[in-house]
Amino acid sequence: MATRVGVVGYLGYGGAELVGILERHPAVERMLLEDRADVADPPRPRGHKGHQRIQGMAEAIRRERLSLVFLATHHDVSMQLAPQFLDAGARVVDLSAAFRLRTPERYSRWYGGDQHTHPGLLASAVYGLPEFNREAVRTATLLANPGCYPTAVNLALRPLVEAGVIDRSAGVVCDAKSGVSGAGRKPTLKTSFCEVTGNFSAYSILDHRHVPEVLLTSGLEEAEFSFTAHLLPVERGILETIYFRLNPGYDAASLVNIYEQRYRNEPFIRLYDPGQMPDLHAVAHTNYCDIGVRVDAATRRAVVVAAIDNLVKGAAGQAVQNMNLMLGLPETEGLL
Amino acid sequence: MATRVGVVGYLGYGGAELVGILERHPAVERMLLEDRADVADPPRPRGHKGHQRIQGMAEAIRRERLSLVFLATHHDVSMQLAPQFLDAGARVVDLSAAFRLRTPERYSRWYGGDQHTHPGLLASAVYGLPEFNREAVRTATLLANPGCYPTAVNLALRPLVEAGVIDRSAGVVCDAKSGVSGAGRKPTLKTSFCEVTGNFSAYSILDHRHVPEVLLTSGLEEAEFSFTAHLLPVERGILETIYFRLNPGYDAASLVNIYEQRYRNEPFIRLYDPGQMPDLHAVAHTNYCDIGVRVDAATRRAVVVAAIDNLVKGAAGQAVQNMNLMLGLPETEGLL
Amino acid sequence: MATRVGVVGYLGYGGAELVGILERHPAVERMLLEDRADVADPPRPRGHKGHQRIQGMAEAIRRERLSLVFLATHHDVSMQLAPQFLDAGARVVDLSAAFRLRTPERYSRWYGGDQHTHPGLLASAVYGLPEFNREAVRTATLLANPGCYPTAVNLALRPLVEAGVIDRSAGVVCDAKSGVSGAGRKPTLKTSFCEVTGNFSAYSILDHRHVPEVLLTSGLEEAEFSFTAHLLPVERGILETIYFRLNPGYDAASLVNIYEQRYRNEPFIRLYDPGQMPDLHAVAHTNYCDIGVRVDAATRRAVVVAAIDNLVKGAAGQAVQNMNLMLGLPETEGLL
Amino acid sequence: MATRVGVVGYLGYGGAELVGILERHPAVERMLLEDRADVADPPRPRGHKGHQRIQGMAEAIRRERLSLVFLATHHDVSMQLAPQFLDAGARVVDLSAAFRLRTPERYSRWYGGDQHTHPGLLASAVYGLPEFNREAVRTATLLANPGCYPTAVNLALRPLVEAGVIDRSAGVVCDAKSGVSGAGRKPTLKTSFCEVTGNFSAYSILDHRHVPEVLLTSGLEEAEFSFTAHLLPVERGILETIYFRLNPGYDAASLVNIYEQRYRNEPFIRLYDPGQMPDLHAVAHTNYCDIGVRVDAATRRAVVVAAIDNLVKGAAGQAVQNMNLMLGLPETEGLL
Repeated sequence: MATRVGVVGYLGYGGAELVGILERHPAVERMLLEDRADVADPPRPRGHKGHQRIQGMAEAIRRERLSLVFLATHHDVSMQLAPQFLDAGARVVDLSAAFRLRTPERYSRWYGGDQHTHPGLLASAVYGLPEFNREAVRTATLLANPGCYPTAVNLALRPLVEAGVIDRSAGVVCDAKSGVSGAGRKPTLKTSFCEVTGNFSAYSILDHRHVPEVLLTSGLEEAEFSFTAHLLPVERGILETIYFRLNPGYDAASLVNIYEQRYRNEPFIRLYDPGQMPDLHAVAHTNYCDIGVRVDAATRRAVVVAAIDNLVKGAAGQAVQNMNLMLGLPETEGLL
Repeated sequence: MATRVGVVGYLGYGGAELVGILERHPAVERMLLEDRADVADPPRPRGHKGHQRIQGMAEAIRRERLSLVFLATHHDVSMQLAPQFLDAGARVVDLSAAFRLRTPERYSRWYGGDQHTHPGLLASAVYGLPEFNREAVRTATLLANPGCYPTAVNLALRPLVEAGVIDRSAGVVCDAKSGVSGAGRKPTLKTSFCEVTGNFSAYSILDHRHVPEVLLTSGLEEAEFSFTAHLLPVERGILETIYFRLNPGYDAASLVNIYEQRYRNEPFIRLYDPGQMPDLHAVAHTNYCDIGVRVDAATRRAVVVAAIDNLVKGAAGQAVQNMNLMLGLPETEGLL
Repeated sequence: MATRVGVVGYLGYGGAELVGILERHPAVERMLLEDRADVADPPRPRGHKGHQRIQGMAEAIRRERLSLVFLATHHDVSMQLAPQFLDAGARVVDLSAAFRLRTPERYSRWYGGDQHTHPGLLASAVYGLPEFNREAVRTATLLANPGCYPTAVNLALRPLVEAGVIDRSAGVVCDAKSGVSGAGRKPTLKTSFCEVTGNFSAYSILDHRHVPEVLLTSGLEEAEFSFTAHLLPVERGILETIYFRLNPGYDAASLVNIYEQRYRNEPFIRLYDPGQMPDLHAVAHTNYCDIGVRVDAATRRAVVVAAIDNLVKGAAGQAVQNMNLMLGLPETEGLL
Repeated sequence: MATRVGVVGYLGYGGAELVGILERHPAVERMLLEDRADVADPPRPRGHKGHQRIQGMAEAIRRERLSLVFLATHHDVSMQLAPQFLDAGARVVDLSAAFRLRTPERYSRWYGGDQHTHPGLLASAVYGLPEFNREAVRTATLLANPGCYPTAVNLALRPLVEAGVIDRSAGVVCDAKSGVSGAGRKPTLKTSFCEVTGNFSAYSILDHRHVPEVLLTSGLEEAEFSFTAHLLPVERGILETIYFRLNPGYDAASLVNIYEQRYRNEPFIRLYDPGQMPDLHAVAHTNYCDIGVRVDAATRRAVVVAAIDNLVKGAAGQAVQNMNLMLGLPETEGLL
């Protein structure tokens, strides 16, 4: 099946990763790319067959009959463009947070008090975490691609919450660490080399915008969930260390067993034997989410470590996974 | 006051940091250095006034009347050398774990089942966290310099445990991240550049050897305390993110207030206003422990971030702070 | 065409890169892997379909009719194994320096005075720089895969030497910088994280073992060629800055034109317009050699910058490029 | 002697390094700091005794009788402020390039065609490389602090040029590599973490603005000197690898001997024995320039490696060295 797609915001880190995956995707026949006029393409070797950079994606959707457009743009921009592209006849995969939360109130609370301009779309958008929402993804017209942090923590926590093994009265802690590409390509002092190298810092402690996505998917309450983000001096990768107390009667094997039952047929989830843990190198440049567990059964303390590449399973890879489902392609096409 | 000191293990990262501090220390008149014969000095510019490298520190203590010797050696070596140096008439500051735990049983449990060969010294050694043990440090003959991870977490937690603000029933989580120098100078695959750069990993989850030091000083029980160490791709620095639930009635200002009362006169503890947090750059190459707090009072969730330089306040700097106290010098001499 | 291959030394950095490329290679049906018994496989997720690790490659060649075996081993080991594997009926691609120099005298001079044990093979081995030796590669039974540094500098220099544009009386300088993976996976102090991060150093100044490969291929004399290697704090990549004086009458366009004529049909050489230069990111994880030029025509000073990924075009990728030629496969198979 | 100084541009990397050195300088009694109103101070721990930030340095010079003001500003800003501060009665140490070149024509050529607005000051300014201009520095009213790259290359080359050991007909190559702090604190895409980490690139090939400083001090002609700058993925440090051909009759010992004669009494120049070379770690956070040599006497090829910390000997440290001379203080005060 030959597919024509568009990408808006293709010069950001998420957008560039997406273009790289789509270039190698056997079903993508043609790709139209758009970005802000003041953002230049990087230098290229002579004779490089550049992608077709266009202006005016809505019109291009009609003219070229694009079946699907990716938005790798700021949530403000996505909120404005998605309705136009849907009107033009394309399905939309939005990598921003514009349509991830289900109500305008929630959006307004977590995104700085801004009013959501399309609450109707907010209600109809599908949250694209395929491992928990695969059927809805297949038929989505507007797909909200999950945030990078929530992808890992939800994949790690939801099977355990569903199985009822967590003693929720003691709370759940997610200590999350991300590479710098998660902050985007726009130069800032915080992401400049001299500030980041040799450094490590915590940010958005207890109030990160990704928290509501975790609550919506995992089923935890806000008071039960403590989340801190940290900036790692690496380009890519997220590692989350998740702490909780087990209900009586469980051990490490119980957790591995729950994950295995739940993820038996999932192509992008990999488990580790107790005692072994994933690290960032294990998942870099892949669409995998790797999960390891450690339990001290006597004291019921448990730790789960989940790792993803924030640009792949945390953004562009998952977006293509969702595209595959939406277009009836094999879910792993272009991703292994 | 002119002091003559010895350093055994001066070519490791902790030992080299110590030599650097002692070279600038106004009270240190002479320094004798020893290391294993098969470890070479690094290249030096021509005309470099090398330190005096010797063999046989015990004899040198007698010959040169050294008042104090630092052990920057593996705990097995320290356990063997400390009694010899005490016999020779020197006071000893040991940077290893050989004399940090108070009973041979505890040592044996956490250090691989090894028997402690000098349980008497174990009982009489002074644990050198000056902020909580200053008077005992002054008169110590054998001083056990704290581990790097416990230094930060104990300074962050003990005032709060003492003040009774933590709801201990929900447990305390310490998610700790350290630079690579904490693993020592001996080349290993785990600490080689290609394995560490662009990477991040968890290790010693729930069973790190530093845990008993935290329990002994903070007053927490093992079942209440979940600790995970992580390896950061930086040379130096430790940042610990500590999570707990507050008892009712406290907020961020309560925590700042407790710290201020407790640390009012402490020269090496620095607090941050709520909303601001230390990072590794803030403490690199200093003997400070920086502490920041964040509280969501409505849900009683609290996060404390503590940062130190693992080679300074976590090792060599604190050792010199202890030396200053032991020798009756100003506590901050050579450290500001 | 279904091919069965072997890899000895698959746990080193070059060997692991090779296995990764061969796994994705459509013509490779089966892969047998060997390494020293005391080198362990890295941790893997559960259910990982491990490669078949064997012991005794020579026997396996006979048993499984392997058509080609890669040696990603130290040159001493390669010198010993290559004859055995050739005897067993396999063609051999050796990534070490064992068979790169044409005479035993030259080998002995540059490799520490060691005698070459198979001078006959030394004479018959084919130096596998396809851009200059493609026909010989096709029929090689023992292929000597070029060193990483020489690959880039020879690709940059030889067309210019052949065209006679360089004023050789003034000498040619190649200032080369490499990522740490070029030093291999064996832990050493020089390649440990704390020694490399934040650092940069020169080594093997004027006497690097790769120099004779450059002289043999480029046609330069030793007295005309000054080469210094440097260690970059990055995992992978080589960038070489090459300085020379032009003969009268040439400018930047002349150089670009010479390269274009020579490399018109080369799939793995990319040129940059004057004023633009490649960097390590441009070639990371690719088999490309990127080349940029800068000339000050008035003073006849010229600078050429060449960049490769030392593990790909500088080792494993070029080895697969050579395999493709030897087996009659498309030269770019598995490499784009 | 108690000195009052001002620093304009104290929030840039060079300015911040300068403030750090001046804080520890025993002769500096008081420091007034100024920067652009839209640049904020970094977060500080509670109770931090901030420096006195002022607006209007010219007035402060008169009011507080500052004896000396440092300009750590862009050359356009320095060109405007220096005359005002001289008028107000202060001596000025300018870390920018505004007054380094001796003629307005040269300034205009290398700094983008801009006209120099104070050619008179250009002629009277003293170029502050103390090792070659110490007496003039002592009495300077306007001191032009050298650029980072020229400091290292001039210290390495000038003694050799003076001694006549270089065969200038073959040209001299300086391949220079710098840490990112040399590019300043203003966020740009080129200096953002994700673009720099794992990367390495050449820039300003043959036309770097620092070249005329090298020509003026070393005595080389432009046609004889090829210079390329490179961006290293480190925070601080410059290493320059310098290639040339020796005139007949010299060897490595000749070069060491020339340096030793010339630099016998220089406190900030350190030489290495032949076979040993400085690296960035050797000079980080110091005011030293380290120099090593390697010669192949048979072919007369020579390589000199020079290393400095670009923020110290390449900027702030050298500025304080110059201040010490200007104020009649010991030259090394505050710098060892």
